[in-house]
Amino acid sequence: MAAQPRQMTMIAFLQAQNCSNLPASWRHPASATDFLTPDYYQRIGRVLEDGKFHMAFFDDRLAMPDIYSNDYRNTVENGVRAVKMDLVSIVTAMGCATTKLGLGATYSTTYYEPFHVARTFATLDLMTRGRSAWNIVTSLNDSEALNMGKTEHLEHDLRYDRAEEFMQVVMGHWGAWDDDALILDKASGRFADGGKVHRLNHEGTYFKSRGPFSVPRSPQGHPVLLQAGQSGRGRQFAGRWAEVVFVVYPSLAAGQKQYAELKAAIAAEGRDPDQLHVAPACYVVCGETEDIAREKKALLDTLPKPIDGLTLLSEVLNYDLARKPYEEPLTDDELASLSWHGFRDRVVALSGKRNPSVADFVHFSGRGTIKEHHAFVGTPKMVADQMEEWFAGRACDGFVMAATHMPGAYEDFARLVVPELQRRGLYQKDYRGNTLRENLGLPKPSAAEARRLAAR
Amino acid sequence: MAAQPRQMTMIAFLQAQNCSNLPASWRHPASATDFLTPDYYQRIGRVLEDGKFHMAFFDDRLAMPDIYSNDYRNTVENGVRAVKMDLVSIVTAMGCATTKLGLGATYSTTYYEPFHVARTFATLDLMTRGRSAWNIVTSLNDSEALNMGKTEHLEHDLRYDRAEEFMQVVMGHWGAWDDDALILDKASGRFADGGKVHRLNHEGTYFKSRGPFSVPRSPQGHPVLLQAGQSGRGRQFAGRWAEVVFVVYPSLAAGQKQYAELKAAIAAEGRDPDQLHVAPACYVVCGETEDIAREKKALLDTLPKPIDGLTLLSEVLNYDLARKPYEEPLTDDELASLSWHGFRDRVVALSGKRNPSVADFVHFSGRGTIKEHHAFVGTPKMVADQMEEWFAGRACDGFVMAATHMPGAYEDFARLVVPELQRRGLYQKDYRGNTLRENLGLPKPSAAEARRLAAR
Repeated sequence: MAAQPRQMTMIAFLQAQNCSNLPASWRHPASATDFLTPDYYQRIGRVLEDGKFHMAFFDDRLAMPDIYSNDYRNTVENGVRAVKMDLVSIVTAMGCATTKLGLGATYSTTYYEPFHVARTFATLDLMTRGRSAWNIVTSLNDSEALNMGKTEHLEHDLRYDRAEEFMQVVMGHWGAWDDDALILDKASGRFADGGKVHRLNHEGTYFKSRGPFSVPRSPQGHPVLLQAGQSGRGRQFAGRWAEVVFVVYPSLAAGQKQYAELKAAIAAEGRDPDQLHVAPACYVVCGETEDIAREKKALLDTLPKPIDGLTLLSEVLNYDLARKPYEEPLTDDELASLSWHGFRDRVVALSGKRNPSVADFVHFSGRGTIKEHHAFVGTPKMVADQMEEWFAGRACDGFVMAATHMPGAYEDFARLVVPELQRRGLYQKDYRGNTLRENLGLPKPSAAEARRLAAR
Repeated sequence: MAAQPRQMTMIAFLQAQNCSNLPASWRHPASATDFLTPDYYQRIGRVLEDGKFHMAFFDDRLAMPDIYSNDYRNTVENGVRAVKMDLVSIVTAMGCATTKLGLGATYSTTYYEPFHVARTFATLDLMTRGRSAWNIVTSLNDSEALNMGKTEHLEHDLRYDRAEEFMQVVMGHWGAWDDDALILDKASGRFADGGKVHRLNHEGTYFKSRGPFSVPRSPQGHPVLLQAGQSGRGRQFAGRWAEVVFVVYPSLAAGQKQYAELKAAIAAEGRDPDQLHVAPACYVVCGETEDIAREKKALLDTLPKPIDGLTLLSEVLNYDLARKPYEEPLTDDELASLSWHGFRDRVVALSGKRNPSVADFVHFSGRGTIKEHHAFVGTPKMVADQMEEWFAGRACDGFVMAATHMPGAYEDFARLVVPELQRRGLYQKDYRGNTLRENLGLPKPSAAEARRLAAR
């Protein structure tokens, strides 16, 4: 990245669901409703590629939200992320409709064997010609555990211990075939060099996997690694593994501080800080005039229902908020039991209260509304000014943009904001290369480098 | 199927590998070598759709063959199915290049949670617009176990007990959303009817999974079910679940007997025997003249190496054949320990020996050569005659055709044999519908029917 003028990394924050990050988005008059078809995802992919986004990235969770009131029917009736589909076929379909766009999918380290995840993503990387990325997550609530054969989710730090070993296995398998192992000589009958394919022979605390892995290297070596941990443990994990980190900033100043901390975490692991892209989540509401933008924003504010936020808060905290009087502070024990530490800590910081109430969680997290992430609102110039402030102010290397509605929010961004950012030299006019690594300015790792990382 | 003249069901037997079922196929002069790209699979898909195949079906196994001599290097050097990729992104890419072709993928019941498999295939079925099928297998060797966190594979009958319960969970989840559950009314904000989505609450011997499942129904209800068990236990499983069964026949007469037994197994479960398609594996070597066909066949016979068959036999029997003198009969204990019972029993029957030797396994199974499956060789008329004899003689409802090389074997079949079979009225001139079920003449099951099957 150093050789070129610094430009924003732009990522779309998607859901393979009936709605965007904003659960009310499906109620938006302009929302497409064919989310059970490939057309829906391919249409979004084309819009993003028109807008020169680096990547389309999909979040996931292995259960519909059903913790609030211990009843899934509210979720289904109101469409609060009631649909959740597997991502591999969806990103592949999107890849078939595009040629440059990166394609990121979430897969949990909690309920799968690492051999399976390594093989799935290595194949996806080949089928997208080196455009794939894996968002590494740890599963965080009991609803997921109960679908996947367990009775409760793993405790926070244990999840990360497991994730760390999971990465060692995946990276070890990805390094199994040397980059020049294939020979493919029909005449001699030599398919590949037997000395250039390696067994992993991993036997650890959580996983055993022998190998040899059965998928050769892809055009970008292996998928790009994405991650979103903001807790202390999550930041450490990011420092070791992540190439793109998603963050949620309570404010620009807090963002600048976190950005510096993340870059330091990378440096602490002996890595080049330029090889980590930090992307805060945002919404963009852009109109041709300020009035249009304001009216669009006003419409968006009418869509959420109170149940949206309560349902999604209970989901990520793994705690039924219906059990607690709305205004009563959560006890220390209750706060300690909440699953997503980074999320909890953000509400504590924003509210200024050591023991926030359910009402505080709803208000200060903004979950279920576009207040959850920073919303850049206004004319193209106004939106570009704000984004430039964050980017030039070293709070981020780009953004992961959630959609107020689909595909309209990305169409508006591509048509209104992108030209303004390009005019300022802050946004790429075309893709730099073909693989996601080329487009992110990340070097292509060798198989030997993957094996070195795995064996740290 | 009853209302129309009986026509062949035609399926391609594919591998997401460097070779077809014939490991030597990659050494064929006309074999494409871009098997690590989507082009390779999309090209085959277009050829199959031109040839009005009902389905492209992919086999799989979770390890490269490495049991023979306990050394994977022979496998890698000789390309004996050394590459094995995950199928979901591959069949999706193929689905993006076709509109009618069915798309079948193998997924094991041994190492995954059924919720994951149910969600993966339900999504695949949506992203292919109702053209997907799941080939249900039990994993059979220790190499797979060692990749997937275990030390040895499951014993034969235990695998089937587990598979049976696995199916109950998958089918239960597939029936979770009633066919008319979605409402999608933006004005009222009602997304779906909360009373029409059901928790599974499965707690069995091997699996727990609560639900509610997070994927609504597809255009064909749920994926078509494929299976290949020929042991007693396998046939019972097929009777309960399968809609297409793959078989390997030692002879036409034996095929007619097995065909009748499979149809009886269906009837014994109270199902309509017409709703099971029985498809024996075959190769086709067709030339414009008999001499061309014979020369093509002669070329194919030069491609295999002895290591091919020994490697693949050790893989499916889960037994290192290098440990045994080549001509020495296997003991009763050794035979009992072999993993794939149907395969073993076929060699016993064909050799006429109670205790066949390694040499007998190589010779009578034909593994690693095109003798493994029946090969229809000759002019279009000669090939059609043989296929008609099997089909009209009630040994099968169609065929699952392996490729001597890719994509040429399917191109030859589509251009030479298909027109001849169509002329005889034995082969569809066009697809009947859009979904795989429509094209196979299988009814679309309701969600209530899925729940009924799951609860048997």
